[in-house]
Amino acid sequence: MKNIVIATLATTSLLFSSSLYDAAKGAGLKPIPADKSELMRLIDNPKNPITEAKVRLGEKLYFDPRLSKSGIISCNFCHNLGEGGDDGVEAAIGHKWRANPNHVNSPTVYNAVFNDIQFWDGRAKDLEEQAQGPMLAHPEMAATSEHVEAVVKSMPEYVAEFKEAYGKKVKITFALIADTIGLYERTLVTPSAYDDFLNGDKNALNTKEKEGLRTFIDAGCATCHTDVGLGGSMNMLNITGTYKHMDVGSFKGDKNGMVRVPTLRNITQTAPYFHNGKIWSLKEAIKEMGKIQLGAKLSDKDVASIKVFLQALEGRKPKVMFPMLPASTAKTPKPDMN
Amino acid sequence: MKNIVIATLATTSLLFSSSLYDAAKGAGLKPIPADKSELMRLIDNPKNPITEAKVRLGEKLYFDPRLSKSGIISCNFCHNLGEGGDDGVEAAIGHKWRANPNHVNSPTVYNAVFNDIQFWDGRAKDLEEQAQGPMLAHPEMAATSEHVEAVVKSMPEYVAEFKEAYGKKVKITFALIADTIGLYERTLVTPSAYDDFLNGDKNALNTKEKEGLRTFIDAGCATCHTDVGLGGSMNMLNITGTYKHMDVGSFKGDKNGMVRVPTLRNITQTAPYFHNGKIWSLKEAIKEMGKIQLGAKLSDKDVASIKVFLQALEGRKPKVMFPMLPASTAKTPKPDMN
Repeated sequence: MKNIVIATLATTSLLFSSSLYDAAKGAGLKPIPADKSELMRLIDNPKNPITEAKVRLGEKLYFDPRLSKSGIISCNFCHNLGEGGDDGVEAAIGHKWRANPNHVNSPTVYNAVFNDIQFWDGRAKDLEEQAQGPMLAHPEMAATSEHVEAVVKSMPEYVAEFKEAYGKKVKITFALIADTIGLYERTLVTPSAYDDFLNGDKNALNTKEKEGLRTFIDAGCATCHTDVGLGGSMNMLNITGTYKHMDVGSFKGDKNGMVRVPTLRNITQTAPYFHNGKIWSLKEAIKEMGKIQLGAKLSDKDVASIKVFLQALEGRKPKVMFPMLPASTAKTPKPDMN
Repeated sequence: MKNIVIATLATTSLLFSSSLYDAAKGAGLKPIPADKSELMRLIDNPKNPITEAKVRLGEKLYFDPRLSKSGIISCNFCHNLGEGGDDGVEAAIGHKWRANPNHVNSPTVYNAVFNDIQFWDGRAKDLEEQAQGPMLAHPEMAATSEHVEAVVKSMPEYVAEFKEAYGKKVKITFALIADTIGLYERTLVTPSAYDDFLNGDKNALNTKEKEGLRTFIDAGCATCHTDVGLGGSMNMLNITGTYKHMDVGSFKGDKNGMVRVPTLRNITQTAPYFHNGKIWSLKEAIKEMGKIQLGAKLSDKDVASIKVFLQALEGRKPKVMFPMLPASTAKTPKPDMN
């Protein structure tokens, strides 16, 4: 008898999970593949395939502040891999302590490879194109492409690593430097308990987390926060409507007033929220989104339930060996603080 | 016959090395001990002994920008472990892009444990005391001790790690946070080929490097650049005299006009040089020091020879696993950019 009860419970639980699993798939939610080749197919760039040598080089460049005009701002300064992949402030601060003039919040670099397009207004098609932007933007790294090239070429160690990565005849250009940084960023994916669940481990999420996922789907969140990235496509944000925090600076989205849906992966580590970083509380952010995007007043219980699910999106980060950078030489452009 | 010739050469080489070894020891030069217990005795703080748990915690704190008022400046921002332990700029840039008002250059954190005293004017007795300074200094991290404590206490992960490191009854104070950062910094030592030589490996330095060490000793450099740190004690710097780069801001050294002798370890990675960061070329720095400190006009050959030796001081860095920091909570003080 005892065994039968257990079997029944197990079946019920399995059915519950299976139906949730199907609902998630039906809502377009997809896991980060557990299979390495499958993952590689998803994140790789056929024009510049990922190799170990390129990743190691890209990691160094990502952490090298000398690519900036001042010599003190690296990619990691705003997209800090130790802080969930962003900077934890409302609007990015860059060269000369200038805040981003559009007052937009630094998006996390983790899982950015799953975005359909890059930047809040989707103006870059991929990470390679995106990586050029902040290096040249005056309120960010404030460099010129000539500066970036000159910095890299001034250090024999970097030149040797570019040759190792791309062959002896490599031409070290600004575009290739950005491509290499973008390539490194492609590898920054963080599988979570949620992915384990969608990859078939029915016990990877606990009951509360499963309930949260169900609430998330039922409330309609997965309409925009879908696919592998739980976000990453362009969608209308009602910034002209009932949005509680209207201080969006001069940022108006793309030409159609659309903004990119942010990923929800590692959302517990990437406050403050929204493109303008105006909401610090995850519960408040969930409630606000329900109201302005779904036209629904989510109950406190639903909000709490969704939050439990979102916590299960906290992913396993790749191990980052803090790179020891090549020493500057007499040819390395000097820092310019102005 | 052939064997005899080789034996003679080997003996000559050995004699040369032995005499150089004795000369180095006679000049007060000491290696970073190869023996781990001996090294530990040298770097440890009896008041707060080094343990694995404290080191891991100190590393996180060292890399955590939220200890600053703005939330974006960590210890590593000016003492970048990937860049030889400093920032590669003339004068440190901190909160609101303010340059250090005394226009002093960020010293490397690597091997700082071997300094007799800390800061250019020697105002802190050890790394624990030093670590408090930049967190509170307005042109650096611009925090208050209350802010730093509140940040750490706001994250359960940090609280748990403090308990693990110091026991369940630990009181998390600003001083203990600084002590833990200082403790981590004690471990940042970088043994080099030069240390291997002084530890008995006669072939660790090649002939040119040995010649360079000889020149270094004969020229008198080891008078100030001595002991384990090749520097680190207070000595008169002739800043009121013939110093070519007199733009030292308001910095006048300590009350006796003394400044701390910088370590020469990893000097190839820590340009620009001098307390005011006014010289970028290592050769020029060697020449200038010869003139103003030793009253000697070093020949180009001597300068080149000394430089070869200094290159052999480039040390093996500890491996740093870039720490994944705890997520902020609702209690974590918000960044303040002003």
